[in-house]
Amino acid sequence: MRRVHDLETPAVLVDLDVVESNIARMAERARASGVRLRPHAKTHKVVEIARRQVAAGAVGLSLAKTSEAEVFADAGFEDLFVAYPVVGADKARRLLALAERLRRLTGGVDSVEGASTLAGAFRAAGRVLDVMLKVDVGFHRVGVPPERALETARRLADLPGLRLRGIFTHAGQGYHAETPEGVREVARHEGRTMAAVADELRKAGLALEEVSVGSTPTAREAMAQAGVTECRPGNYVYHDGTQVALGTCAPSDCALTVLATVVSVSGADRAVVDAGSKTLSSDPLRPRPGGYGQLAGRRSRIQRLSEEHGVIVVEGGEPFRVGERVRILPNHACVVSNLHDRVFGVRGDAVEGEMKVAARGRIE
Amino acid sequence: MRRVHDLETPAVLVDLDVVESNIARMAERARASGVRLRPHAKTHKVVEIARRQVAAGAVGLSLAKTSEAEVFADAGFEDLFVAYPVVGADKARRLLALAERLRRLTGGVDSVEGASTLAGAFRAAGRVLDVMLKVDVGFHRVGVPPERALETARRLADLPGLRLRGIFTHAGQGYHAETPEGVREVARHEGRTMAAVADELRKAGLALEEVSVGSTPTAREAMAQAGVTECRPGNYVYHDGTQVALGTCAPSDCALTVLATVVSVSGADRAVVDAGSKTLSSDPLRPRPGGYGQLAGRRSRIQRLSEEHGVIVVEGGEPFRVGERVRILPNHACVVSNLHDRVFGVRGDAVEGEMKVAARGRIE
Repeated sequence: MRRVHDLETPAVLVDLDVVESNIARMAERARASGVRLRPHAKTHKVVEIARRQVAAGAVGLSLAKTSEAEVFADAGFEDLFVAYPVVGADKARRLLALAERLRRLTGGVDSVEGASTLAGAFRAAGRVLDVMLKVDVGFHRVGVPPERALETARRLADLPGLRLRGIFTHAGQGYHAETPEGVREVARHEGRTMAAVADELRKAGLALEEVSVGSTPTAREAMAQAGVTECRPGNYVYHDGTQVALGTCAPSDCALTVLATVVSVSGADRAVVDAGSKTLSSDPLRPRPGGYGQLAGRRSRIQRLSEEHGVIVVEGGEPFRVGERVRILPNHACVVSNLHDRVFGVRGDAVEGEMKVAARGRIE
Repeated sequence: MRRVHDLETPAVLVDLDVVESNIARMAERARASGVRLRPHAKTHKVVEIARRQVAAGAVGLSLAKTSEAEVFADAGFEDLFVAYPVVGADKARRLLALAERLRRLTGGVDSVEGASTLAGAFRAAGRVLDVMLKVDVGFHRVGVPPERALETARRLADLPGLRLRGIFTHAGQGYHAETPEGVREVARHEGRTMAAVADELRKAGLALEEVSVGSTPTAREAMAQAGVTECRPGNYVYHDGTQVALGTCAPSDCALTVLATVVSVSGADRAVVDAGSKTLSSDPLRPRPGGYGQLAGRRSRIQRLSEEHGVIVVEGGEPFRVGERVRILPNHACVVSNLHDRVFGVRGDAVEGEMKVAARGRIE
């Protein structure tokens, strides 16, 4: 059995005990709230981990891009939701090919222009694509404002080739809330707004079967709101420094860490490890900046990154020596996954094996 | 012939006319200064582009990690410098395997502790590894301070299994200089400091054959300083938004852009494209923050990134519509390369073909 100490650095470690506990806990929360769980696979991009999520009760997976969905379709998953405004004739063709081999494929839309292209491709093939309309509950990224949801939904429902299955949102503003209570307030607003929009659409005669909310920080409160039917958290499977800072989880709930080696201590005030932005990403800590990675069992943090260097600013004379190993909790686990071809599944000090990050780099 | 317009988005485009002009210009500068050019291949990570650099006169390549060097050794390059403090027995074994198949391999060191492991592995195999000592000329990342260079160099020269070939530096502080004159001042300091350290070491009886400087912003001035023998710029092959902001190049000298599609215009103040931090990286603009990408022919910029979304804050009512294509100049080309399995070589609107980013994700 290989030990963690035997691995070359940098290496991404995934603690499987923590993953299993995270998966079980979120599945139990969804059951307790009576909602379907459709985890966002972008966090791990790993087939084996998605299988554990489905085995624990997930109804299917959420994906960010069409090409990500193709990876999980190839691996045998049958119910996939591309939770992104899918736009363009090339993507419509790929969705059509996916629809022909899945039990259920759902696409995200937030404009009639985007939806029309999908509708045209499916209608020409004699098929119907299930779509969900994205609603903006305050993140102000994509999604129609709640007050425009009815008008857009009516026009979508009129497009032959599409079936409007439901509405979905992502309350990403929760990542910028200053306090845990601020996060909960975002979550309640998310769930209630979506329930109210669903009521309005149903009263207008539109048959919605799904009211879907998302995000790890807001999942617990949002899925507890009456009228919500589905939840799509992603990050919970690993958690990260940002979730700890937001109060979503304890440090012991974080499954993904980076093993690195100290390669230089040329200045007394700093130590440099062989993990930089190519390994940790340059994503800042949320909700407030706080360096680029916390070292297990150390006070000092990584405060500066280059592509191949993580610069630890040494606190209070804490000793570091060339060649020693450190374990780093990154700010954002999802982007770390996207940087690596493989991660190592570990339990304590034992390395169980490698897992391929099968959907890494799928951007289309 | 495929046209740019035929490509699915997001897609990374590399303008080959610009690449060729950038390669020729830097090669000519090195020749005019009488220094050897050893480009850092981390910017492109593409075998075909490295071949063009060598064909234009580069003596070999610089790489950041041992595993990057392996990719270029596999592709037939014969003179490689791992310009990074190489630390650990596992890396020493990989360097040894590389040394056995290259005409010349050089490793970077900045500590006697790190160097001793390399020396032990090479001595045990009856071989000698050429090393360069990294000197810190003010970036304060890795490298010994100039005043400690002699003491460290003497100890390195005493290690059987190593040969101290020279000294090298990277004046990364040039990326934080506020003005083009500030960059030039960093460059002159870089070249002069290295020349002075080399003089001191030679007077102490150490035979140095290489005094190597680096970085695209400082290359021109640093290589012009007396005593400098080698220059290792990387970014110049593509350039990027940061080089334009620093005054290193004109916008027309930038070879790498990202083709993206507008997927949402749900708010009047914003448009969202299908290229986020998974495509552009979340590296900030240097020397001052200024969004995450400039749109060709547009006033508006990408001001916010999620993994799959680039949020354009619309300036002055500039129109964007769902489905339209935009071309984005990223802040930092090197990290964009590391996110993608392939880039498309283009000339004007014609797509010449795909190039594999062969050394993408090589972190070890």
